[in-house]
Amino acid sequence: MSTPVEKWAEQVRAGDVRAISRAVSAIENRSHQAEEILRKLFPYTGHAFRIGITGAPGTGKSTLVDRLAGRYRAQQKTVGIVAVDPSSPFTGGAILGDRIRMQGHATDSGIFIRSMATRGYLGGLAQATGDTALLLDAAGKQMILVETVGVGQGEIEIVRLADCTLVVLMPGMGDDVQSLKAGLMEIGDIFVLNKADREGAGRFEQQLRAILQIVPERDGWKPPVVRTIATENKGVDELAEQIEIFRKHFGEAHQRRARELAHWKEWLLRMLEARLMERVGRHLTESQLEKLAAEVAARKKDPYGAVEEILAHAGMGEKR
Amino acid sequence: MSTPVEKWAEQVRAGDVRAISRAVSAIENRSHQAEEILRKLFPYTGHAFRIGITGAPGTGKSTLVDRLAGRYRAQQKTVGIVAVDPSSPFTGGAILGDRIRMQGHATDSGIFIRSMATRGYLGGLAQATGDTALLLDAAGKQMILVETVGVGQGEIEIVRLADCTLVVLMPGMGDDVQSLKAGLMEIGDIFVLNKADREGAGRFEQQLRAILQIVPERDGWKPPVVRTIATENKGVDELAEQIEIFRKHFGEAHQRRARELAHWKEWLLRMLEARLMERVGRHLTESQLEKLAAEVAARKKDPYGAVEEILAHAGMGEKR
Repeated sequence: MSTPVEKWAEQVRAGDVRAISRAVSAIENRSHQAEEILRKLFPYTGHAFRIGITGAPGTGKSTLVDRLAGRYRAQQKTVGIVAVDPSSPFTGGAILGDRIRMQGHATDSGIFIRSMATRGYLGGLAQATGDTALLLDAAGKQMILVETVGVGQGEIEIVRLADCTLVVLMPGMGDDVQSLKAGLMEIGDIFVLNKADREGAGRFEQQLRAILQIVPERDGWKPPVVRTIATENKGVDELAEQIEIFRKHFGEAHQRRARELAHWKEWLLRMLEARLMERVGRHLTESQLEKLAAEVAARKKDPYGAVEEILAHAGMGEKR
Repeated sequence: MSTPVEKWAEQVRAGDVRAISRAVSAIENRSHQAEEILRKLFPYTGHAFRIGITGAPGTGKSTLVDRLAGRYRAQQKTVGIVAVDPSSPFTGGAILGDRIRMQGHATDSGIFIRSMATRGYLGGLAQATGDTALLLDAAGKQMILVETVGVGQGEIEIVRLADCTLVVLMPGMGDDVQSLKAGLMEIGDIFVLNKADREGAGRFEQQLRAILQIVPERDGWKPPVVRTIATENKGVDELAEQIEIFRKHFGEAHQRRARELAHWKEWLLRMLEARLMERVGRHLTESQLEKLAAEVAARKKDPYGAVEEILAHAGMGEKR
């Protein structure tokens, strides 16, 4: 006889939308059940191709993701979309946005779309996103698109879990090159110049290519630039083609194994860190941290003592 | 009656070189005594100005640091130098290098030089460097120069603890712009073009200035470029002047307080993380981690179970 979690896991594997949704919610809430079901599902993961899509707000990422998803669906590939929005609060906007986005694919069971929002200051979003990608992988989604707003370190961590990272840019963003944040340049496997019909696209592409020369090659891969107009579905085929070329470039079995091993070594340490800090976070509010920092800055308390205080408070103090 | 550690702390505060050296060794070895003495010394910190110096190997960082230190000494300012070399093993090279470097200042008690090398894979170097900077601060060093090879995330963390960060570059490094690693561009408060008498310096400076336009301004500060020839002591005065201008720019009391508060909020969380991961690391070897990662990659084990295994092994498992 199967336990409720086993049954739930079966439903996820069968691609049941409600079962998957419940599991994502469990992951977001860091509930005990989330880990239980993920452990059941883990043996069935490792088959999906994960594409990270990042870029500043307003570059048209969501439209691009939708078009790319549509193209994969036309090829009978199943698709999972995880949209990470660190700026939105947990309820309201994100969920509503999902409903609107889902409408275009309402009758298509081969696609699953879900937004994740940031909660608390002690990390965890990258972890939740990684877990959700694993879940969708186990649910049989072949292409997993993880979309995030590229601004800080946290977002860079999120896209680093992808097999291939797209950086989306557009011409005419303020001072043009200002939008080419240095950190973004290093993580892109493919650069997408969206809204390519806008004025200044040519000049922008030139600047982009010049700056891309700074970025060191990785395993013989030189990031290409693809022009798209997502709203008109232009350039999306070329983009999908570049993704395929990238996939083949890194697709050799022994290369894949080495990458997987490196990935899990890093990811295990991150999970450890996230788990320990989460435990601390349960007992430490932002204002408590602020107060302690102020006391340390004023030299009323030393940082070692402050750290011990936090750990003791969290029941994680060390006996000497 | 004062305890041995109290006496030791007194000696450090008096600038005793042997006492300081012993304390740095204690920090490197993460000995129990290190924390004890740092707690005693912490109330006397907060007076030094910390300058981070980073750049690729061969750019002449060490010579530049020595010249800058010499200039500060000529102004009767006391100096502490912490040289971080993540690539060198713990013993031998670094220590020997210190001896050679110290010779030029052998009879000068107003300067202290120490190298730190990386140990183990679970962080800790940024922590040790930060602690050493605090120690030298308490020892009355007015200018603390933290020198590190700018390559990875860890080194960037190290310079981030500085009040002002210099990025050292030189013309003719391979393909020129290749040396301008994107990550480095974002952390520099001042860019130093060393070996400026070399061929191609003009063209390199042009490229550098073009790329610096990408970097967003921070609190109204636009990073200047200073040309130096450290071996001939040229440009060092101009560099020291730019550092003073920077210091004044960010020197307003209320700005300083806000920066200090932000610094300690971040640093407390980092210390927490480092302490917890260090505790894990005491029970986890690199090969154990590698083995677990391989098992996870092969789907023989799930990552949640692997993390629990590591925590249980470290005596940090959570009771459910």
